[in-house]
Amino acid sequence: MSKVITPRSEDYSRWYQDVVLKAELADYAPVKGCMVIRPNGYRIWEKMQATLDRMFRETGHVNAYFPLLIPESFLKKEAEHVEGFSPECAVVTHAGGSKLEEPYVIRPTSETIIWSMYRKWIQSYRDLPLLINQWCNVVRWELRTRLFLRTTEFLWQEGHTAHATEQEAEAETLQMLEVYRRFAEGTMALPVLRGLKTEREKFAGALRTYTIEAMMQDRKALQAGTSHNLGQNFARAFDVEFLDRDGERKLVWATSWGVSTRLIGALIMAHSDDRGLVLPPALAPIEVAIVPIYRSDDEKSRVLETAGRLKQELSVKYTVVLDDREQFKPGFKFSEWELKGVPVRLELGPRDVDSGQVVLVRRDDGSKSFHPAAETMARVEETLEAIQKGLFDKALEFREANTKKVNSYDEFKEFMDADGGFALIHWAGGREDEERIQDETKATIRCIPLDGEPEDGRCILTGKPSKMRVVAGKAY
Amino acid sequence: MSKVITPRSEDYSRWYQDVVLKAELADYAPVKGCMVIRPNGYRIWEKMQATLDRMFRETGHVNAYFPLLIPESFLKKEAEHVEGFSPECAVVTHAGGSKLEEPYVIRPTSETIIWSMYRKWIQSYRDLPLLINQWCNVVRWELRTRLFLRTTEFLWQEGHTAHATEQEAEAETLQMLEVYRRFAEGTMALPVLRGLKTEREKFAGALRTYTIEAMMQDRKALQAGTSHNLGQNFARAFDVEFLDRDGERKLVWATSWGVSTRLIGALIMAHSDDRGLVLPPALAPIEVAIVPIYRSDDEKSRVLETAGRLKQELSVKYTVVLDDREQFKPGFKFSEWELKGVPVRLELGPRDVDSGQVVLVRRDDGSKSFHPAAETMARVEETLEAIQKGLFDKALEFREANTKKVNSYDEFKEFMDADGGFALIHWAGGREDEERIQDETKATIRCIPLDGEPEDGRCILTGKPSKMRVVAGKAY
Repeated sequence: MSKVITPRSEDYSRWYQDVVLKAELADYAPVKGCMVIRPNGYRIWEKMQATLDRMFRETGHVNAYFPLLIPESFLKKEAEHVEGFSPECAVVTHAGGSKLEEPYVIRPTSETIIWSMYRKWIQSYRDLPLLINQWCNVVRWELRTRLFLRTTEFLWQEGHTAHATEQEAEAETLQMLEVYRRFAEGTMALPVLRGLKTEREKFAGALRTYTIEAMMQDRKALQAGTSHNLGQNFARAFDVEFLDRDGERKLVWATSWGVSTRLIGALIMAHSDDRGLVLPPALAPIEVAIVPIYRSDDEKSRVLETAGRLKQELSVKYTVVLDDREQFKPGFKFSEWELKGVPVRLELGPRDVDSGQVVLVRRDDGSKSFHPAAETMARVEETLEAIQKGLFDKALEFREANTKKVNSYDEFKEFMDADGGFALIHWAGGREDEERIQDETKATIRCIPLDGEPEDGRCILTGKPSKMRVVAGKAY
Repeated sequence: MSKVITPRSEDYSRWYQDVVLKAELADYAPVKGCMVIRPNGYRIWEKMQATLDRMFRETGHVNAYFPLLIPESFLKKEAEHVEGFSPECAVVTHAGGSKLEEPYVIRPTSETIIWSMYRKWIQSYRDLPLLINQWCNVVRWELRTRLFLRTTEFLWQEGHTAHATEQEAEAETLQMLEVYRRFAEGTMALPVLRGLKTEREKFAGALRTYTIEAMMQDRKALQAGTSHNLGQNFARAFDVEFLDRDGERKLVWATSWGVSTRLIGALIMAHSDDRGLVLPPALAPIEVAIVPIYRSDDEKSRVLETAGRLKQELSVKYTVVLDDREQFKPGFKFSEWELKGVPVRLELGPRDVDSGQVVLVRRDDGSKSFHPAAETMARVEETLEAIQKGLFDKALEFREANTKKVNSYDEFKEFMDADGGFALIHWAGGREDEERIQDETKATIRCIPLDGEPEDGRCILTGKPSKMRVVAGKAY
């Protein structure tokens, strides 16, 4: 397979696909809309999981596992939920050689099966809050798919919590949104806007859906995580009541929240470049690649000895590859580690060994510097920190440069026609108005920002009064 | 829910179910043959995963993820494979609101989908060996199910490797069997016999299946892990060839190997007792429970202060619970931590605080000892080691006491009637002979042991000459 990547400026979609396939993150599977997550991609997911899982535990959550298959009748118990998910379901009608009495759907999300169990487990206020998370696969039959960003099957985590009061459920919903923001910004180096989804865009069955929205390099929005206040909808559908301190039986309050392997797509689209993958060090499966350079056997043994020592030293803290493959030239190796997104490359030749220095190359900006070999650990540490911060700053700067206050519908159409990015608009339209702007501009209301400043204005479409600007844009 | 557990002597199956349900390891799901793995059970699985995953990495394997759904036609490409798995499959016939052109089966195991990808990825000897593992869920439509031991859906890992030569594939198969043995014996404290399955019992599509077999407390066998040399069967079915060093195109050699959440069932059945769960410390989610004992407020503050210090000290190395719940008495707490299998309980009352001592109770044998509080860390460490070793020794002793050389078919029938355990028998029968002894005695050939001593004898059923004894027994 050729390692040449289509430049972003030429064809952004093709560039993305090239990076995913050529860095061997994923491959197309012989199953409609499905992908195979290859070891290079799966390792990134495992690193994401490790960090998120720690954050979930620190906020009091525990993991469990619920069945893949859900009786079709369960889905129907919550009216909005079934309407939203039923058209996307894969249905098992036969098993063990015979037709099933009642079909099962493969979980598109697990609210219904989980709340059917919560009914058994929750009796009293002492059983609350119940704070459970699940790591699993889900299936949603999508028509148009794209590696990582939208696939028929994907991997995710879904938190499902049960609370005694509305306030507690709302606090949990916002707490988990904040966990996602911290993860996106701190670990993925991906700046995000926190906001509320409109009625039209909220989760099927939720009271309110909160979201984190990121901007990709083509200025499109990507929904990177959602946290739902489900109110008492699922407790009502599954008859989950608890005996409160005051002796009264009450319906339980619910939340759910999730992020998926889609985040790997966001990571690629936010940071990578025309040479391939660029990864924030916090998620890089390999942080350092050492490439030895030599011509003669004598040079080789001297260089490899020093390189081996460097590797050993760095391995205490980092995952390090010493690329001593014989069949490839250094230039080939440089390109390969760049393609795979290794944040720091160390180059070491015989003259470097003689002068006790090492060449350090940053993946993000390609800058090259020379350091005393004895200081390698310290230099690598500070470079990795600088890359993590640099990627975030660059992405934030890009988003800010491509976010604009737009004050009329004509201006909005022009802005969206030019793929301008995020438009901050006054909005007071309803569901049909949203549909209209999507039909006419392909843009949607991404969110009503939580950190928005109050500002009086008039809806760009309906002219109705508005108290704050919302974020609109084209989205993945 | 009553916490009383049916004694093993009264009803072993009921005892097992009581332990699983009352220790809240799992619950029955409203989906035929499925269970919910509750947080207490899932944490054990996560600890198993962490240890196994490290062992897989140390032997050069990487993780990936392949689709849940497999085109029905793929299964049919390997004749024995489809015959073995097709009757157990759950079939998706509809998705996205319409009937599918070709049905998908939910993976019962992933050889076929994985080898369809290996065809794309393997071109040359340089691509070999390919050493991939997958953690996932699988579905096999079982008629008779039992929590953890046999469920329609279960979680597992499946390794799938590709090699240039038969020898390498065989070495990999045996290496992974040895990884499983080390895990079972070292981490689960579960002694196992390593052996070869008979033709009748081997994996559908394999050349040879190796197994580790353990004995449960009712003297039945439990297959705890299998490793298959698949020969070239799947390479042939999916046309996976590589260009070898000698310039010739050759079929690739394959292995697969797996263990599942069934191991949690094995763990319970091997070590637990009439008071509930007994866990080897290496897999215990909580290693130490501290129960403070006090009557007055003054006693309470003194005891809790010391208990808090103990907890802090031990938490550097262990997961520790300080059970300061007000609503329960110490005796209730003792029973609860016993039920949940916490290996070490520390009791601390006002007199203990005064005399600077702490009471340590072992979960496995219930023994109680008194130690200077200042030595707690050292005493806990050595006690946990002693429990880990003690559980293994006890299970080994039990297996040896219930393993017998049996020299005639009459004696065999009598031994199996009495649920005697493992019978070491001379065996030279074929597939039909195995079926006959299963029909007549419910026992099967568990394995042809790898560590068996050569011994001339005659098959207990057919009288044909035999060179070594095999292991037979009733099994889960």
